[in-house]
Amino acid sequence: MPDTRKPDHSRRSERSRQAILEATRALVSEVGYGKVAIETIAARAGVGKQTIYRWWPSKGAVIFDAFLALSEGHEGQGMALPDTGDIEADLKTVMRATAAEFADAEFDKPIRALNNEIINDPDLAAQYREKLARPVDEAKKERLRSAQRAGQLAADADLDLVLEVLYAPLFQRWLHRSGPLTAEYADSLVDITLRAFRP
Amino acid sequence: MPDTRKPDHSRRSERSRQAILEATRALVSEVGYGKVAIETIAARAGVGKQTIYRWWPSKGAVIFDAFLALSEGHEGQGMALPDTGDIEADLKTVMRATAAEFADAEFDKPIRALNNEIINDPDLAAQYREKLARPVDEAKKERLRSAQRAGQLAADADLDLVLEVLYAPLFQRWLHRSGPLTAEYADSLVDITLRAFRP
Repeated sequence: MPDTRKPDHSRRSERSRQAILEATRALVSEVGYGKVAIETIAARAGVGKQTIYRWWPSKGAVIFDAFLALSEGHEGQGMALPDTGDIEADLKTVMRATAAEFADAEFDKPIRALNNEIINDPDLAAQYREKLARPVDEAKKERLRSAQRAGQLAADADLDLVLEVLYAPLFQRWLHRSGPLTAEYADSLVDITLRAFRP
Repeated sequence: MPDTRKPDHSRRSERSRQAILEATRALVSEVGYGKVAIETIAARAGVGKQTIYRWWPSKGAVIFDAFLALSEGHEGQGMALPDTGDIEADLKTVMRATAAEFADAEFDKPIRALNNEIINDPDLAAQYREKLARPVDEAKKERLRSAQRAGQLAADADLDLVLEVLYAPLFQRWLHRSGPLTAEYADSLVDITLRAFRP
């Protein structure tokens, strides 16, 4: 039955892809961005180097995809934010998930390692913004624009600033371990942001 | 004239103290918190080890004082925030100075090095909060309480949250080099915070 070959192949590819992304995150946590090599990722993932190069042009590309997949995976729905028409409810859903994610040790270690690298390496910070932060921020801004159209957020609000006010306190609290990352905290950040940027 | 001896001695002590704090900041930038030793600080500052131990009980204590002195030095007036009776004007003065400080390369390097250490070391993060962040935050909250009494800030505002909303966006923008640290940006953070926590 030749028509089943393709799905089987796809499943095998997907398993290899996931193994590569997991190996990448583990290695960044263990040895740091600078010391991770394609060879080591391939060995850890149990695939050939060529399998990695078939899908990713460079080490940087596979590392950023590994972190991007982590953000997507927890939501289970890609990068688009929920849009029920109620910006407060939707942002609380997203921010509670984000707080839970940062409080999760499995997520904490590789993201902490990535932040460590970014702090000291302006080029890597630029790559991070371009490849990882910007696509995610763009998806969030899409939801904020919908709230602006619905009159739930000031039409002239600077959306980069809205995202900073919403996320930076949680990021700093996580990075400095300066307070609990609870659902209540997530909710309060949404309440404050919506009050600051109300129409 | 025996009564001039004490001032001379004080000036010499103050010079030694400043040399020790400068040497400490330089060494943390160069080799990291973990590898800085009292011996190396003493050698760099041109003082004896005993001079350091006379004033500080431990390596941690001198390092935190070195960073605390950096924050105080730029303001030139200790930790108390200005209180002209106008919370908006006073916070803008402080936040513009903070933005300028973070944009200053001399400040950037040691604070970046300190953050790097804090991220990976929960014990050091706790020490940082206790010895460095808490006293500074307490001084800021004193000014916010005065604004609450003046009816310029909600009486039930969570002051830890007020400080996070005010400072965390600037901190994240600096850490990830994700945007300019201008006076306009500082002002907009004050405007947003006051809008979010208005009475």
